Amino acid sequence: MATNQEEVKLLGSVKSPFVCRVHIVLKLKGIEFEFVDENLANKSDQLLKYNPVYKKVPVFVHNDKPISESLVILEYIDETWKQNPILPSDPYHRALARFWSKFIDDKIVAASVKVVHSVGDEKEREKNVEESIEALQILENELKDKFFGGEEIGIVDIAAVFIAFWLPVIQDITGLKMLTAEKFPKLYNWSQEFLNHPIVKENIPPRDPLFAIYKAYYDSLIASK
Amino acid sequence: MATNQEEVKLLGSVKSPFVCRVHIVLKLKGIEFEFVDENLANKSDQLLKYNPVYKKVPVFVHNDKPISESLVILEYIDETWKQNPILPSDPYHRALARFWSKFIDDKIVAASVKVVHSVGDEKEREKNVEESIEALQILENELKDKFFGGEEIGIVDIAAVFIAFWLPVIQDITGLKMLTAEKFPKLYNWSQEFLNHPIVKENIPPRDPLFAIYKAYYDSLIASK
Repeated sequence: MATNQEEVKLLGSVKSPFVCRVHIVLKLKGIEFEFVDENLANKSDQLLKYNPVYKKVPVFVHNDKPISESLVILEYIDETWKQNPILPSDPYHRALARFWSKFIDDKIVAASVKVVHSVGDEKEREKNVEESIEALQILENELKDKFFGGEEIGIVDIAAVFIAFWLPVIQDITGLKMLTAEKFPKLYNWSQEFLNHPIVKENIPPRDPLFAIYKAYYDSLIASK
Repeated sequence: MATNQEEVKLLGSVKSPFVCRVHIVLKLKGIEFEFVDENLANKSDQLLKYNPVYKKVPVFVHNDKPISESLVILEYIDETWKQNPILPSDPYHRALARFWSKFIDDKIVAASVKVVHSVGDEKEREKNVEESIEALQILENELKDKFFGGEEIGIVDIAAVFIAFWLPVIQDITGLKMLTAEKFPKLYNWSQEFLNHPIVKENIPPRDPLFAIYKAYYDSLIASK
């Protein structure tokens, strides 16, 4: 258990969905921590020291021991602070939770990044949108309960914060529709339930500044074509 | 614990380093299992049923419950059969083991695949070889003991079977040198120690047929350019 003497630090940036995952789980478990807002255009010595391999946020630091990669951090936190577990206790359901968390990174996030970057190449963009929709369809079929974690949010829901919050921002900026209530009613309802969860609601970044940052980035992409 | 009544099945192909990971850990733990050799050019109904998302091997089946993704399977096996653990018991070292296993997939395996597929494009290939060497250098710096797992092999070593066995095959086929004793003495020594481990030695595929399969694939790539 954490005590006040412990160092619990999150090096992050509010615009990152991967940082947001860690933020949500720390709040869900009621762990006090220091948030270090990194300027990713001018990375701190601390970030370079703690994550020399990727030089990326999030980095989670517990008593001077750094951990990178958001899903790895989530599992570490769940193993270290047992309250409000985000992984199931049964090994098979743990395996499924890991599988779907990885699926979100490998398929949903990856496809969305490609959608954004293929601006100006209609054929490529169409392919990427289709890939994204196929992946969302797989997740739609997988959703059986209120949350992926059942009645409570778990690691898959938290990994999927990208789908609930970032994807709609991307849709509004690009004018593309991937996650809609018509196409994916279960996933859309999930996203609303998830965003209304008291811990999530309080700890997702404010939309307007995030929208402005992403919009500026997207405009710079268009200008570079 | 496994009993003789249990169904423990591995859907695989001897040419896959991801399947080999699961094979090694099952043998390391002394778990009896049925190996189902999949013809990947003509996938079985069983494979499509058990892994509808990726339709890929390995699929591990335990009492009719299927699991995909080799690192997810490895963790499941380690949680279900406790003998000869491949993950450290301490949460921080577990996190590091997960980080490095993922690094091997995201950086080393991915770069090697790109090296192979960039045949015919010298500039692209040079970039990919460099990427591969940079990733190997990071791993070289990380290796402190006989194995990544310390005195015994662990999940990182098993994930790295690709580096010990598949990468040299790729090097011999492409004529490119990435992992050499001169460039990476620690990693090279590790690869020899690892391949000489009694369980590994007995359970890696025979080199000649594997070489022939990969060579034929590489020749077909060249022909298609």
